[in-house]
Amino acid sequence: MPATYQEQLEEVNDDLVQMTRLVGSAMNRATQSLLDADLSLAEAVIDFDSRIDALANAVEERCFDLVALYQPVARDLRIILGAMRIAGSLERMGDLAEHVAKQARLRFPKASVPTELRGTFAEMGGLAEAIVSKTGSVIATQDVSLCADIARHDEEMDRLHRELFTIVLSPSWKYGVEEAIDTTLLSRYYERYADHAVSVSKRVVTIVTGEPYVAVNLDRT
Amino acid sequence: MPATYQEQLEEVNDDLVQMTRLVGSAMNRATQSLLDADLSLAEAVIDFDSRIDALANAVEERCFDLVALYQPVARDLRIILGAMRIAGSLERMGDLAEHVAKQARLRFPKASVPTELRGTFAEMGGLAEAIVSKTGSVIATQDVSLCADIARHDEEMDRLHRELFTIVLSPSWKYGVEEAIDTTLLSRYYERYADHAVSVSKRVVTIVTGEPYVAVNLDRT
Repeated sequence: MPATYQEQLEEVNDDLVQMTRLVGSAMNRATQSLLDADLSLAEAVIDFDSRIDALANAVEERCFDLVALYQPVARDLRIILGAMRIAGSLERMGDLAEHVAKQARLRFPKASVPTELRGTFAEMGGLAEAIVSKTGSVIATQDVSLCADIARHDEEMDRLHRELFTIVLSPSWKYGVEEAIDTTLLSRYYERYADHAVSVSKRVVTIVTGEPYVAVNLDRT
Repeated sequence: MPATYQEQLEEVNDDLVQMTRLVGSAMNRATQSLLDADLSLAEAVIDFDSRIDALANAVEERCFDLVALYQPVARDLRIILGAMRIAGSLERMGDLAEHVAKQARLRFPKASVPTELRGTFAEMGGLAEAIVSKTGSVIATQDVSLCADIARHDEEMDRLHRELFTIVLSPSWKYGVEEAIDTTLLSRYYERYADHAVSVSKRVVTIVTGEPYVAVNLDRT
């Protein structure tokens, strides 16, 4: 028996939750490859990104077919078009995990991160994990009360990002220009990863509450 | 007399072309503010970004209403959903112009770009202008033969981006860590700006040819 419209909608949602797991795992492993200067782990993350891209594309095509076939309106249409945008953001989060892994690969066998900053990057990796896992829960449960946590994690990520700038620009920075640039770019990848998770959460809020995307404030949810 | 469906589709397309002009102008002025360390120009770019965001949002809402009201299928649906994605990419290009302007503001009254690199950033600004202007033409005319030019401009932008890395990492780099970081981040903003223009062009190709987005190769168009 072919899946009903409602079942197909649920499958799209399941795919999005699955994507949060994949891009969460990708960023976790990318962080690990960075901290351990682990080339084979970095390459595994890089290879895996095409699977994330393929899943994002499959979700987008399925959403297209659902709109064309069932011509949903109002909230249902908002759910499906929202899912397309969410798939796009998650795909981009996968790219950012790949960027981190590529940075680890580029400097191998050297570590890309100076010893003193390992703790900060481990913390950013942990925040990335927390934020993507809560984003998955928001998609799965539509419980937007989790969004305030996501906003807090994002603020903490921004704080670490600013802190790293202060460190590399301080007169006591004892490494070179290369390490400063690596640190800055890596830090930006984590910060953008968190931004995309925030964007995904805001899309879910627009679906649940009907508020326009630009008006959503996660702190209020 | 209210606009017909076809007229409304054309209005969406006109809005997208208008957005390419706005984000093109924003990046041009941001580059100028950077090269001249012009604070008031930088602030004008920063203030203007909310208008670009508002236009992107208006396009997205209008596309939503068109789908809900007229329930288009096949190519028409692809056009409207493509327009939503294009508006999102153009909005992001506006953000990147804003980032460049913020960098100029941050270092004012100092110039953010070392004298020797002014030429390279002027070139990146020129490429950004060329790429966004051709992207506007592709949207306006649906003439995808222009896409090969866009791909070439993007490759040239990537080359300049790599060249800047080589310069800041060379032993002859006579500036400090701050200038190296500024250069790297600015260079990345231009490179991402071009990437988004490529993404917009690929969306137009999917609309015109029906190819899936992931399969589009602009060099072949």
